[in-house]
Amino acid sequence: MSIYGSIIGSVRENNPLVHHITNYVTVNDCANITLCLGASPVMAHAIEEVEEMVSMAGVLVLNIGTLDNLQVDQMFKAGKAAGKRGIPIVLDPVGAGATKFRTDTARDLIKELPVSVIKGNAGEIGTLAGMQASVRGVDSQGLSGDPVEITSKLAEVLGCTVVMSGPTDIISDGERVFLVDNGHPMMGRISGTGCMAASVIGACIAVSSDWVNASAAGVIAFGIAGERAAGFAKGPGTFKSCLFDALAGLSSEDVQKYAKSRVI
Amino acid sequence: MSIYGSIIGSVRENNPLVHHITNYVTVNDCANITLCLGASPVMAHAIEEVEEMVSMAGVLVLNIGTLDNLQVDQMFKAGKAAGKRGIPIVLDPVGAGATKFRTDTARDLIKELPVSVIKGNAGEIGTLAGMQASVRGVDSQGLSGDPVEITSKLAEVLGCTVVMSGPTDIISDGERVFLVDNGHPMMGRISGTGCMAASVIGACIAVSSDWVNASAAGVIAFGIAGERAAGFAKGPGTFKSCLFDALAGLSSEDVQKYAKSRVI
Amino acid sequence: MSIYGSIIGSVRENNPLVHHITNYVTVNDCANITLCLGASPVMAHAIEEVEEMVSMAGVLVLNIGTLDNLQVDQMFKAGKAAGKRGIPIVLDPVGAGATKFRTDTARDLIKELPVSVIKGNAGEIGTLAGMQASVRGVDSQGLSGDPVEITSKLAEVLGCTVVMSGPTDIISDGERVFLVDNGHPMMGRISGTGCMAASVIGACIAVSSDWVNASAAGVIAFGIAGERAAGFAKGPGTFKSCLFDALAGLSSEDVQKYAKSRVI
Repeated sequence: MSIYGSIIGSVRENNPLVHHITNYVTVNDCANITLCLGASPVMAHAIEEVEEMVSMAGVLVLNIGTLDNLQVDQMFKAGKAAGKRGIPIVLDPVGAGATKFRTDTARDLIKELPVSVIKGNAGEIGTLAGMQASVRGVDSQGLSGDPVEITSKLAEVLGCTVVMSGPTDIISDGERVFLVDNGHPMMGRISGTGCMAASVIGACIAVSSDWVNASAAGVIAFGIAGERAAGFAKGPGTFKSCLFDALAGLSSEDVQKYAKSRVI
Repeated sequence: MSIYGSIIGSVRENNPLVHHITNYVTVNDCANITLCLGASPVMAHAIEEVEEMVSMAGVLVLNIGTLDNLQVDQMFKAGKAAGKRGIPIVLDPVGAGATKFRTDTARDLIKELPVSVIKGNAGEIGTLAGMQASVRGVDSQGLSGDPVEITSKLAEVLGCTVVMSGPTDIISDGERVFLVDNGHPMMGRISGTGCMAASVIGACIAVSSDWVNASAAGVIAFGIAGERAAGFAKGPGTFKSCLFDALAGLSSEDVQKYAKSRVI
Repeated sequence: MSIYGSIIGSVRENNPLVHHITNYVTVNDCANITLCLGASPVMAHAIEEVEEMVSMAGVLVLNIGTLDNLQVDQMFKAGKAAGKRGIPIVLDPVGAGATKFRTDTARDLIKELPVSVIKGNAGEIGTLAGMQASVRGVDSQGLSGDPVEITSKLAEVLGCTVVMSGPTDIISDGERVFLVDNGHPMMGRISGTGCMAASVIGACIAVSSDWVNASAAGVIAFGIAGERAAGFAKGPGTFKSCLFDALAGLSSEDVQKYAKSRVI
C-alpha cells in the first residue's frame, strides 16, 4: 500500500474527531465530507467550550470564510489550546487578499498559532507570501510569480506545510514539493470544495504527523472523488451529491491506484 | 388508521409552524425536512423577535449544536414565551456530555423551561440522566446502564417525554415505553439526521398533545423514509436527497403499514 | 436575442461578484445558485470588512431571513457603502409582517438605503405597502387588495423595482408591469427558492441598469430551471439538486424561447 492509501485507510480506521471553526456558508458540506472520509466532524465556536472541545479532537480546522471579530477570538482561544496539546491545526485563509481584515487575521493566526497546514487558492497563498496577488470575494484572480516557488518558500519560511489549490495542486513543506493532478473542473462549479478540501486534509493530518504526505493524501482522495462524481453528474447539483457518494465509496486501494502525483 | 398514521396525517393537514433556534450546521436540513413532513419551518433567534415569532408557532425546537452565550439567552426568552402560551418545546441537547458548557446549558434549559420532549443519543440522554456516559464531539461513545430504564426514569423524573435515538429508538413518558426499529444505518452516515428527527418530532407534537405517541409517530415516519431512501441511494450524498423525497412521499397509510414499534 | 436572453448571457460573460449579507438557513443555496447562473457569490458580514468587500462587488443582496441587531448594523454599513459607489442593492424582506422587528428593519433599510429591487412574497410586499397582509413565519398567508396595483404602487412610491413572487410573479418599476408565469409548484416545496430568486435577480441587476427587465430575466431563468428540474425530480430532495443542474445548463436561447412573460 502506498503512503497515500495508508493514510486514507488510517482515517477510516481511527475515525478522528475534526473540530471546525468555520464559515456558515459551507459548514454542512464540511461536516458531510468529513463523515464521508471516515472521520467525525464537530463544529463548536463558543469561547466557553472551544478549549474543552478541541482537547478531544485529532485536529482543528480554522476557516475564515465568514470571519468576524468574535470568531477571531474563538479561533485564537481554540488554536492556543490545540497548540498546547500538540493537536495539529489546518488554516484555510478564505478571502485573504480580498479585504484587509481577512489578510490581517490570516497573518495573525499564522504568527500566533502553530499552524500545521495552510491551504488556499493561488491568490490567498500569494497574499500570505507577500506577493502581488489578486483575490475578488473568495476567488483567486491571479498571482505574479512562480506558484511552486511561492508555495515552497512560504512553507519554508513558516515551517509548515502549504497547499496551493488549483487545477494542479501544489503541496510543499519547504523541502519537498508534490504536484497533484487529480480533480475535475466541476469542483470549481460548486461552492465549498475548497472548504471541504481543508476538512479532508484535516482528517488526514489527524492520523499522520507527516503533514506533507497527509495533505497530499487528502487532496488526492478528494480529487479522485471529484473525477468519479463528474462521471455521474448532470450538472453542479447532482455533482455535489455524487461527490459525497464517491468519497464515501473510495477505498485505500483506489487512492493508491488512481493517484496522479509527482514529486519535483 | 393507527395513531401514528393519524398524527402524520394531521401534520400534513394542519401545517403547523415549527419555530427553530438551532445550529448553523444542519439548519437547512431541518428547514427542508419540516417542509417534507407538511409543516412550515421558521428560524428566528433575535432577542427582539423570538417572543413574537414563537407566539404564532405550533412548537419550539431548541437545538444546542452550535451553542454560544447569545443563543442561550435567545433560547430562554423564546422558551419562556412558549411556556406562557402552552406551546410545546422540543430540546435536542446536541453534544451534552462533551463539554461542560453544553451539559450545563441543557440542564438549565430543562430546569427553567417546560420542555415537552427531549431527544438525544445515548450519550446525551445518559449525561442528562446523571449516568456514566461518553460523548465525543456530538457522537455518543457509550452509556453504562440499561438504556430503557435510563430513558424511562429520566422521563419520569422530568415529567416529559424522552427519546433516546439509536438503532432502536426508545421513547418514554415515564409510564409507557415504546421501542421503534424503523430506520437505516445510512442515516448515521450523513450529518443532521439527529437534528432533523427533532424537527419531525416537533411538527408531530405541534398537532398532538399525546407527546409520547406523537414522538413515536415522528421517529417512525422518519425511519421509514430512511429505509426507503437507502433503497435508492448510491452513497451518503444521494441518500440525503432521497431521504427528503421519501419523507415527502410518505402517506399516513405507509406510516401505519410499515411502522416497526413495540410497547414494553 | 430578447432582452431576457441578453441579460442572462451578460451574467455568464461578465461573472459579477454578488455580495450577500443573508440568513444562515439558505446561504449555501444562495452561493450555489449564484454560481449556476455564472456569477460569483461572496458572503461577508463583519463590520470590519463589509465596506471593502462591497466595493469590489457588482451588487449587494440583503436578506433578513435570520435577522438580528448585529446584522442590521452590518446591512446599513454595507448598504451605505454600496450607495456611495452606485452599486445596486436587492432587498429580500423575509418575514416582514411576521414580527415588528422584521417589518421595522425592512422599512428602515428601504428608507435609508438606495434599494434597487425589493423582492418578496405577497404578504411581505403587502406589509411594506402598508396593506392588510398576513405573514406567518416566513410564509405569506394572504393579502387584501389587488396584487398588481400594490406592487406597482409600492414601486412608484419608492422609486425602485418591486418583485412580488407567487405562482405568477409581478414585477414593476411603477410604470411598467410585467407578469411572469414561469416556475413550478415544486419550488414552493423546498426551503430557499425565495432567497435564491433574490440572488439570481441580484446577479442580473449587476449587469444591467434596466432593473425591471433584469429582475424579470432573473425570475424567468430561475422559473424555467424550476420547470425543467421538476421533470427529473422524484421529490423535493432530488428536485433541489436538479434545480441547480437546470439553471447551470440553461442557455440564453432557452431563456428567450421558454419565457412566459406578459406586459400589462
